[in-house]
Amino acid sequence: MSVIIKNGQILTHDECYHADIYCDQGVIQSIGNNLQVPKNSQIIDASDQYIIPGGIDPHTHMELPFMNAVSTEDFFSGTSAGLAGGNTMIIDFVIPKRGQPLMEAFHIWSDWAQKSAGDYSFHVAVTWWDKSVHADMETLVNEHGVNSFKHFMAYKDSIMATDEILINSFSRCLELGAIPTVHAENGELIAHLQQKLLAKGITGPEGHPQSRPPEAEGEAAHRALCIAKALQTPVYLVHVSTADAVDCIRYARNQGHKVYGECLPTHLLIDESAYYQQDWYQAAANVTSPPYRSENHRQALWNALQSGDLQTTATDHCCFCLEQKAAGKQDFTKINNGTGCIEERLSLMWDEGVRSGKLSKQDFVALTSTNAAKIFNIYPRKGAIRVGSDADLVLWDPEGTRTISVKTHHQQLDFNLFEGKKVRGIPTHTLQRGRLAWKEGQLMTERGFGRYIKRPSYRPQ
Amino acid sequence: MSVIIKNGQILTHDECYHADIYCDQGVIQSIGNNLQVPKNSQIIDASDQYIIPGGIDPHTHMELPFMNAVSTEDFFSGTSAGLAGGNTMIIDFVIPKRGQPLMEAFHIWSDWAQKSAGDYSFHVAVTWWDKSVHADMETLVNEHGVNSFKHFMAYKDSIMATDEILINSFSRCLELGAIPTVHAENGELIAHLQQKLLAKGITGPEGHPQSRPPEAEGEAAHRALCIAKALQTPVYLVHVSTADAVDCIRYARNQGHKVYGECLPTHLLIDESAYYQQDWYQAAANVTSPPYRSENHRQALWNALQSGDLQTTATDHCCFCLEQKAAGKQDFTKINNGTGCIEERLSLMWDEGVRSGKLSKQDFVALTSTNAAKIFNIYPRKGAIRVGSDADLVLWDPEGTRTISVKTHHQQLDFNLFEGKKVRGIPTHTLQRGRLAWKEGQLMTERGFGRYIKRPSYRPQ
Amino acid sequence: MSVIIKNGQILTHDECYHADIYCDQGVIQSIGNNLQVPKNSQIIDASDQYIIPGGIDPHTHMELPFMNAVSTEDFFSGTSAGLAGGNTMIIDFVIPKRGQPLMEAFHIWSDWAQKSAGDYSFHVAVTWWDKSVHADMETLVNEHGVNSFKHFMAYKDSIMATDEILINSFSRCLELGAIPTVHAENGELIAHLQQKLLAKGITGPEGHPQSRPPEAEGEAAHRALCIAKALQTPVYLVHVSTADAVDCIRYARNQGHKVYGECLPTHLLIDESAYYQQDWYQAAANVTSPPYRSENHRQALWNALQSGDLQTTATDHCCFCLEQKAAGKQDFTKINNGTGCIEERLSLMWDEGVRSGKLSKQDFVALTSTNAAKIFNIYPRKGAIRVGSDADLVLWDPEGTRTISVKTHHQQLDFNLFEGKKVRGIPTHTLQRGRLAWKEGQLMTERGFGRYIKRPSYRPQ
Amino acid sequence: MSVIIKNGQILTHDECYHADIYCDQGVIQSIGNNLQVPKNSQIIDASDQYIIPGGIDPHTHMELPFMNAVSTEDFFSGTSAGLAGGNTMIIDFVIPKRGQPLMEAFHIWSDWAQKSAGDYSFHVAVTWWDKSVHADMETLVNEHGVNSFKHFMAYKDSIMATDEILINSFSRCLELGAIPTVHAENGELIAHLQQKLLAKGITGPEGHPQSRPPEAEGEAAHRALCIAKALQTPVYLVHVSTADAVDCIRYARNQGHKVYGECLPTHLLIDESAYYQQDWYQAAANVTSPPYRSENHRQALWNALQSGDLQTTATDHCCFCLEQKAAGKQDFTKINNGTGCIEERLSLMWDEGVRSGKLSKQDFVALTSTNAAKIFNIYPRKGAIRVGSDADLVLWDPEGTRTISVKTHHQQLDFNLFEGKKVRGIPTHTLQRGRLAWKEGQLMTERGFGRYIKRPSYRPQ
Repeated sequence: MSVIIKNGQILTHDECYHADIYCDQGVIQSIGNNLQVPKNSQIIDASDQYIIPGGIDPHTHMELPFMNAVSTEDFFSGTSAGLAGGNTMIIDFVIPKRGQPLMEAFHIWSDWAQKSAGDYSFHVAVTWWDKSVHADMETLVNEHGVNSFKHFMAYKDSIMATDEILINSFSRCLELGAIPTVHAENGELIAHLQQKLLAKGITGPEGHPQSRPPEAEGEAAHRALCIAKALQTPVYLVHVSTADAVDCIRYARNQGHKVYGECLPTHLLIDESAYYQQDWYQAAANVTSPPYRSENHRQALWNALQSGDLQTTATDHCCFCLEQKAAGKQDFTKINNGTGCIEERLSLMWDEGVRSGKLSKQDFVALTSTNAAKIFNIYPRKGAIRVGSDADLVLWDPEGTRTISVKTHHQQLDFNLFEGKKVRGIPTHTLQRGRLAWKEGQLMTERGFGRYIKRPSYRPQ
Repeated sequence: MSVIIKNGQILTHDECYHADIYCDQGVIQSIGNNLQVPKNSQIIDASDQYIIPGGIDPHTHMELPFMNAVSTEDFFSGTSAGLAGGNTMIIDFVIPKRGQPLMEAFHIWSDWAQKSAGDYSFHVAVTWWDKSVHADMETLVNEHGVNSFKHFMAYKDSIMATDEILINSFSRCLELGAIPTVHAENGELIAHLQQKLLAKGITGPEGHPQSRPPEAEGEAAHRALCIAKALQTPVYLVHVSTADAVDCIRYARNQGHKVYGECLPTHLLIDESAYYQQDWYQAAANVTSPPYRSENHRQALWNALQSGDLQTTATDHCCFCLEQKAAGKQDFTKINNGTGCIEERLSLMWDEGVRSGKLSKQDFVALTSTNAAKIFNIYPRKGAIRVGSDADLVLWDPEGTRTISVKTHHQQLDFNLFEGKKVRGIPTHTLQRGRLAWKEGQLMTERGFGRYIKRPSYRPQ
Repeated sequence: MSVIIKNGQILTHDECYHADIYCDQGVIQSIGNNLQVPKNSQIIDASDQYIIPGGIDPHTHMELPFMNAVSTEDFFSGTSAGLAGGNTMIIDFVIPKRGQPLMEAFHIWSDWAQKSAGDYSFHVAVTWWDKSVHADMETLVNEHGVNSFKHFMAYKDSIMATDEILINSFSRCLELGAIPTVHAENGELIAHLQQKLLAKGITGPEGHPQSRPPEAEGEAAHRALCIAKALQTPVYLVHVSTADAVDCIRYARNQGHKVYGECLPTHLLIDESAYYQQDWYQAAANVTSPPYRSENHRQALWNALQSGDLQTTATDHCCFCLEQKAAGKQDFTKINNGTGCIEERLSLMWDEGVRSGKLSKQDFVALTSTNAAKIFNIYPRKGAIRVGSDADLVLWDPEGTRTISVKTHHQQLDFNLFEGKKVRGIPTHTLQRGRLAWKEGQLMTERGFGRYIKRPSYRPQ
Repeated sequence: MSVIIKNGQILTHDECYHADIYCDQGVIQSIGNNLQVPKNSQIIDASDQYIIPGGIDPHTHMELPFMNAVSTEDFFSGTSAGLAGGNTMIIDFVIPKRGQPLMEAFHIWSDWAQKSAGDYSFHVAVTWWDKSVHADMETLVNEHGVNSFKHFMAYKDSIMATDEILINSFSRCLELGAIPTVHAENGELIAHLQQKLLAKGITGPEGHPQSRPPEAEGEAAHRALCIAKALQTPVYLVHVSTADAVDCIRYARNQGHKVYGECLPTHLLIDESAYYQQDWYQAAANVTSPPYRSENHRQALWNALQSGDLQTTATDHCCFCLEQKAAGKQDFTKINNGTGCIEERLSLMWDEGVRSGKLSKQDFVALTSTNAAKIFNIYPRKGAIRVGSDADLVLWDPEGTRTISVKTHHQQLDFNLFEGKKVRGIPTHTLQRGRLAWKEGQLMTERGFGRYIKRPSYRPQ
């Protein structure tokens, strides 16, 4: 069925103008003033609203097996919550265990993701190295539309990539026209500090930030950037949380190196004091890596969004419920790492970013959708409002409000880090490839409607 | 008459795709594949070419009275040369003398510009201050489409703006929704060094760079940025030539301040050794302010284009012939300041920027056209290829070559700083609002075809 | 009379060792273990104490006529309080009015200073320019032992130096082997903001910091440094209070430029919230220029002391009593600028610097005495403990405590910004050229005992 | 026998003054004007000369077994050449093989060093880790006067320290009051690039710098600094060669972290073009790690010496003759790494540093002697001219000249990287603990006269 959106203002990463949009067969067919309404078209009135490209969350972990648990949000519930929050696409992660063939893991995750309501794609993690990994990377790029590979510099004795793996994999990425992405924290340093803190009797959630100081992130960020620079490949840092890492990114960019950085609303907005709350569960709820930081780091992140040194926002949506978190009651290193806010990201960025004057409306679109589409090479199919693009559209009410709460959110998570926060700026309608999935508070997602999105290699064809 | 461009690839600041473009009444009417050719339409074949938005040169000085001379390029010849080089619009400068009412000067320049072949607009300089200036700024913004005011921090005892003027004018700009622009060189320091050098017997062109050291630019850049930051207004620095100024821009941007910087191909490509050539005329030809610099500064400029810390390229096209330059034969301070390359800017940026791998194709469009349109608030009328935009289009042959020479250029200048340089990447056709003004080496400009382009205030309406 | 100090540890800027010190005729005659006590020598027992070089405060304003008042501390009371606080020398400022001959002002100040109890010297301010200033500077350097000239970039319409004056004076300093010093705040910007704030109805002390934002200091600091660099002269910035200025200093130093910076304990320790206190007098008491700043600036100052980018601490001791401050009750711009802490500087730097672990003991001596002596070219006569140096010695009790209070301090000031603060680390004895001026809480200064200290030109002789 | 040095100027890191020096029993007994000459004292006339503290070279590798060879300079010949060059002490390195007990290696090196003519001490390398290493470090600190441990981040598959080793060892250093020192180059990256270059057929000396890009040093420097910062230990980087590492050092120092850096005259003066010389042997002679760099890096090193961000100069004296270098004729990775200039360091630093105006005379002493003594905690026994200090003194003729040549140098090296360079500024006499070891071109060293110098722990006693 076709849809026509009337009376709205189209807001993209570089424009804002009045026009109607006509969508059919999941694609934008025309944009213009006073478009004629074809018969049988659904008409959506966008008066007083912006029409923006659907949000792309380039960093989620649906139903992730991690630390002896599985994240509670599955691909259906997670992408549904995402659609409720104005996201039409996620990029999740395939994370092979050490020794597990990449293709095997890719197929496992692909199976899980069949149930997605929203569109999805995969970064594939390189957690070990041998000839099969080398070969599978090529298969993934050439046959499966994977153009990004993830590397964990944290999580010693588990999925941590050594320098040797980083170098091999970054080199391979360059050959294949894929981009390496990096979780930048020095796993050795963290493991050492964890043991030292435990030995001192610090077992509570406050041990989490203490064992992951800004230097641990700054170190790894710089290492990844230097290796990338020496090998002449671009690189993308996920969930940048510190001034230290921002400084490293700037240092590289200022020398002309192609470097991208992502940040999360949680790091922008939540203070490290969260880990020092009396209530163990409230503190543990905030345990995710990297941890939340002090004011100067948060200021640095905002400034980097303003200066263009960070280009994307994501959520690292990885939900563990309080019961799961309780596994670490006696030992903070056993608290499941992860929180979620896929449903709140856009509202938080509008409320705290645009309304505060820090970001322009166009910045908002760039930071929640377009830049991710460009970096991961699916623009203008995604992240754009132009004829021929997927009809992934959100009607954005800049004056609409919502009070965030676990009671009303759609996420499979029994707490919400922003509980009680009232945000102004909400999605009233979300269209996934022309299909209404969210309408004025009503979730209308369909299990399995989501499509896997192939992302082509960066190599000139 | 209508025009249809077929078989080309549309290249914008963020896309590159195959589509035809149909233009009528000076405006782009449709973009799409296999557009039908209306009767009587002129068909242009763009096979193997990119179609880019016409270049915008945001910094020219046509027929400028300066230093007891008038620049040789008038608005017709200058915009014609510009069209030959792929530029469809310039932003020139109205420069009132001290005490001269702004409106008076604006009308004088407006008269001169009637003869333009290409579209044009004006920055208006604030060279003095009183209530009338305060009032005229409002008239210019509200009635004449001026949204930028220029300030010279150099040229002591002439048009130099004191801090008091800067502060008054920047404040006024903020009120009016206009952006202050700045020529950042410390005029006091330069005047002192000029006298010191002359006193030492240094009278030749080498005195020019020696009297205008990088610190003179770094100082003024930082001062302008600090004043702007304290007053909470954005600011735009013209012709940034030094690492020092780039560092200041970054410092401000990294704190979230909205700052823009422009650079010239000449500063990117010409070395300060140019002033030490044996032939006085060859050396004097390079005299312009700020002067050309050493390698580390040029590297810094390229890197700043890559990192996004400089956003535009311009020419500061201000032609003085060798005979005029000769006024300074005994005294370098009397050499007319100015050179020109409006006809070469795009080719130089493609050849040295894109072909070298420093910039992407999209960067090229952003840096030669789109960013200027956005910053000076005429996007997407200008700087864009979209339905409804002015049909200012250039067919860009990425493999076409040209050997730059005074013998073949269309500029009213009896030398060319890039004489003999062979560039790859040339405009084969330039359309000004749908009219062919340049076609495969043939200049077909029309006196007076250029229109004055009003640039609206930045204030939310 | 001769003095011998036994059983102490000599602590200098680069050593700490046990030795006795024998002083006679105002000079250190010998240093060694188990020195024999000459007959008639006074013996001072320094057990458990450090013996340090007397503090040098390179920035005071005794009995300064300023803003229609005269600072309450005169040369006798001020140097006495200084001796009580462990200072054996000050460098005060001769500040000619515009048009007033430098020599005339120098003689006036010299007369006033006759009454000093402690040794003193003068920076001479250059507040205007003509040939006589040019000539007087030479006289001061060659005949009167002045090797530093001060420049105010603030205080528009009063003593503010224009760029032209700065350039002339800096150049002259270089010729004469003197060092220019600078109060770096942009007076134009401040004047503008003052008027703007008053126009908005902001008349209280909070207007003071609001009218003097960090950018005003950063701007002027950078300007002074750029001018100095272009002229190839070293430069010394007084009372650096912002991260902005620290960054400028580093930028210059990192390019090999010889730049010095001074900071005050008040800027290190007092928060800008001081200006927002309910009690007008308490708020007004803190009014001094530049104002106190937020946490990030204070952190930057401490770090710069640690990294060596700031080299001296001073007090800008310039006492105005509350009654004098009251002149600005209706208008913050009329509150007399100035506070004092000559008696607390050393204790504050020990307590907050050394005891917190930020600074080493040796750093403490360097920052309170030796570096000033070196920079102002009176080392090792002052600032050193070596044979031949003036016997300006302080016995420092690292464990002694004192609770700072207006009730017990010796300063002519009817408040104390550190009221109630308990500091650990106090001077128990102060010797001025071998004469005990302060002994275990007892002030024994002598009017007129202070000597004018000539400071030789830096030029190689 | 006692010695008295008359008529000279004593030049230290912070003073320059005329005085005589009387030495007996290897120690400075008195300093003063017109010292009486005790009977039987040797009188040395220092007219027109400076008397400086003997140079300390904190980085040498005498008779080092490395890469299947042994460096040709043994402890006698090497310290003798050092004395000829004005050095009275070296700090060499004990480098255990993986698995070799630290104490065993320490005793082997101690035996070798018995033959030294000059004083010496040892850094001990930590190249592997187990409980015995942990225990031996304590023995070395407490019983053998070792207060610094070295870590190689380069040399994969040989002595490279992993992050785990770095963390363990740095932590242990902190406990023991020792300082970790680091050779900062990323060994993984280098190994990868070496293989890549060899695979491309690049086998000559030019492969050396290409396989060790600035990023490899910048990366490792930053990593070491971050680990040190997280563990709150100071750290010392040896042979800093790049702007990248300097920037990292500054970043850490600007946050108040205690970080030291060393550089070599070779990196200050030799260009990377050295590796591209036609003559294989001439190119191979320059092979040392890190390699020589381009101009911007050398400029950064000089500036860092000026700003105080690098504190010491050393030589990394490690001589391999051309025949030994020839082992790498077919494969640059097999060229023995190392060159030497222990005999030229002081002259080069004077000639290029002081005479060019980059450094002051006092800086020269600090950078060649005093700072090393302070950092390695043997000041003022070494590095000072004061009563009680070792009589390690050099008479420095600032106008004396020498043309550097393999023909005249005393080093066991069959080439000299500075062949033919004429330097102004030479040592005319070198006294080792009061004994003349070098006198006007005559080497008078004595095998075994050198003493092992214990360096105490930094822990407060």
